[in-house]
Amino acid sequence: MADMREMRSGKQAVCNPLGISARSDCFGGARADYPGPVSLLERGLLKAMLRALGNPPVALVPWRGEPILNARGEARVRIHLRDRGALFLLALDPEFQFGELYSNGRLEVEGDLVRLIEAIFAAQGIRQGMRARLLSLVHAPRSNLLGQSTRNIHHHYDLGNDFYRLWLDRQLLYTCAYFPQPSLGLEEAQIAKMDMICRKLHLQPGESVVEAGCGWGALALHMARNFGVRVIAYNLSRAQVAYARQRAREEGLDSRVSFVEADYRAIRGEYDVLVSVGMLEHVGRHHFKEFAALIDRCLGRHGRGFIHAIGADYAGPLNPWIEQRIFPGAYPPTLREMMAVLEPAGMSVLDVENLRLHYARTLEHWLDRFEASREIVEAMFGPTFMRAWRLYLAGSLAAFRSGRLQLFQVLFQRNGDNDIAWSRAHLYADKESPCNMPKF
Amino acid sequence: MADMREMRSGKQAVCNPLGISARSDCFGGARADYPGPVSLLERGLLKAMLRALGNPPVALVPWRGEPILNARGEARVRIHLRDRGALFLLALDPEFQFGELYSNGRLEVEGDLVRLIEAIFAAQGIRQGMRARLLSLVHAPRSNLLGQSTRNIHHHYDLGNDFYRLWLDRQLLYTCAYFPQPSLGLEEAQIAKMDMICRKLHLQPGESVVEAGCGWGALALHMARNFGVRVIAYNLSRAQVAYARQRAREEGLDSRVSFVEADYRAIRGEYDVLVSVGMLEHVGRHHFKEFAALIDRCLGRHGRGFIHAIGADYAGPLNPWIEQRIFPGAYPPTLREMMAVLEPAGMSVLDVENLRLHYARTLEHWLDRFEASREIVEAMFGPTFMRAWRLYLAGSLAAFRSGRLQLFQVLFQRNGDNDIAWSRAHLYADKESPCNMPKF
Repeated sequence: MADMREMRSGKQAVCNPLGISARSDCFGGARADYPGPVSLLERGLLKAMLRALGNPPVALVPWRGEPILNARGEARVRIHLRDRGALFLLALDPEFQFGELYSNGRLEVEGDLVRLIEAIFAAQGIRQGMRARLLSLVHAPRSNLLGQSTRNIHHHYDLGNDFYRLWLDRQLLYTCAYFPQPSLGLEEAQIAKMDMICRKLHLQPGESVVEAGCGWGALALHMARNFGVRVIAYNLSRAQVAYARQRAREEGLDSRVSFVEADYRAIRGEYDVLVSVGMLEHVGRHHFKEFAALIDRCLGRHGRGFIHAIGADYAGPLNPWIEQRIFPGAYPPTLREMMAVLEPAGMSVLDVENLRLHYARTLEHWLDRFEASREIVEAMFGPTFMRAWRLYLAGSLAAFRSGRLQLFQVLFQRNGDNDIAWSRAHLYADKESPCNMPKF
Repeated sequence: MADMREMRSGKQAVCNPLGISARSDCFGGARADYPGPVSLLERGLLKAMLRALGNPPVALVPWRGEPILNARGEARVRIHLRDRGALFLLALDPEFQFGELYSNGRLEVEGDLVRLIEAIFAAQGIRQGMRARLLSLVHAPRSNLLGQSTRNIHHHYDLGNDFYRLWLDRQLLYTCAYFPQPSLGLEEAQIAKMDMICRKLHLQPGESVVEAGCGWGALALHMARNFGVRVIAYNLSRAQVAYARQRAREEGLDSRVSFVEADYRAIRGEYDVLVSVGMLEHVGRHHFKEFAALIDRCLGRHGRGFIHAIGADYAGPLNPWIEQRIFPGAYPPTLREMMAVLEPAGMSVLDVENLRLHYARTLEHWLDRFEASREIVEAMFGPTFMRAWRLYLAGSLAAFRSGRLQLFQVLFQRNGDNDIAWSRAHLYADKESPCNMPKF
């Protein structure tokens, strides 16, 4: 809270957690290398870029002269390129440089940023072209070996609880919500999500639950409070664990919920239930075997589990800019790759639900709240950070709307165990119940 | 129907559709090689077999002398081996020979056949041992190239509609039913299954549906009658297609449903919906690419589909006896292998439901009905066939109860299409509805 007061008092934060070169000299037009007129070659390059994008209804506006329109002369959104270097960087490596240039202000978007990215995704399709595959070698994702995982997680989740409090719900759930009705508010939808997970798992009082990757602890506390289970929850983020522990104490749940600052690979013991929400995408596919071994090891003959993770329909790396600047080491697995975790663990998949559009709805809420707080974010981390995070949220929203990303909820149980729900009707039996739960 | 009258008048059928040597000389004890006393070596072998099975509560009873009990002296079921050769065949290749010997009467089971097989499955676990893997090379599954597929399908499905009418429901649905309540009857559960498939697919009047593998046509007719769609349904079985066409004419649905006697690879054209119930397990994993190509080809930008198939949690061949005698060319895919069909087809998985215990319940109904008609079956095809099919039904029931086999229902839609159900609540909104549909 101390940080927040400093921020609000107007003191400029100097940290630059993303490592993007700020190039603030771009903004006033006061650069030494003030760009000259746009050559014919450069106009040709701009036209070629629009064609390569599949002629979306976008205008490319160079630093001087007329905008370049698509073949149909449409332009619902305008992309301003502020200098010659920005054009060449974007032409060379668009997947990475769009984010860099947008963040440091050398590329600006006039119009709806989400619709722009959606239009680009729609034009590209989901399968990666040869150039994107080659460039993904240049931007090799960070590893998730034990030491690096810690750094990766700190990079994102230790930006300070005050930052996340600006745009997440009150309980700080930083994963896809579940909206029984699309019009539901974010607070209720996050409670409905936790409730639905507990119902899918059919939690019984007295059972033991291990949570791999617990964020700020809301689900662990919800399970213990509303379903009477004991929970041990693991997380690498120091800031999140400290917050979760304090909440457990304040709510008198610390005898039934314990939070451990450690990697999922450190989990020992046997439990009735394993739950992992929003973590598999940080495991990285080279470590799926370790995750499979964990599941097999910590679930007994009647064990059951639940994975909620961002995924994809087609195997390929995350956008390199997102991986580099926002989520180091992240990889969204396909359902096929998720099965490669559960099959060797001896698990039987009972239920898979794709909540892609619920994640888009969640991100609409987050982005709205983020925009409403953008001045505070700028005061905390500077304009480059604010633009980078706006782009990340807008890009994620576009990715879920367009089907680039999926959200899979997978319920599983030890192969051959017949103590399973007869059907899914009970999940929907009382329409009001997911939102009737005690509120935080 | 002519066949049925002959059967009921007591005329013995001479055909032997399974190809198992009947060895009817075993039954009266009038064999030339009347087996001598059981040697110490043979008793040791029987004990070793029980141990290898994990000491289930089973007694092995040799052709003479005392039964062999497990280490705890329990025996809820007794397996009688009628001669020395039966013992050695069973010891050498149990996975295949159990079925052969049971069918031709050289091995008899006293007690609950289903519980016996469940106990053996439980003792073995799901992962194949080295011997089973080696023996699976000996019993290489039949191919599913175009010509062979036709033979494979004739082998099973062209046994005559009268045979299947003895133990299936009135509409001849030969796939897992859906029981909203476990106590529901088979007739209602098969209607509930068809209805649930149509609801998951959100069928709209006027849409076009292609069905790959349509059995006796019940689902195609149900869709056209109750959801106002047009259906073209493919099947390799001549007997089934003839029956389905006649039903369509009788019900006045032949303008909206057409049945084609052809392989799924012959499907052409583009449709709103593709549905395939109980066919993927006959496609064979070497042909999944062709099935993927079919899905991609016949579903447009807004196409959606549904696969209902027997699967497994762990990759491995079907029991070799079932593959050889009952379902030539069949292979139960894992969910991971099913994803390998949908991913290259550009599909997004929306929903997966595992109905394993519903298939066990379905098989309980089928087995009860089969046992009630066993004398008619014997009159149709002889005692070897009757015992083989009893074993197949009992073994399948045990396989679903024990988790050897799974039943996956997978709903999918073209990647990126947002015209999808917001949640699954509507599937369960009116609890009565799956059983309130017009009856056949």
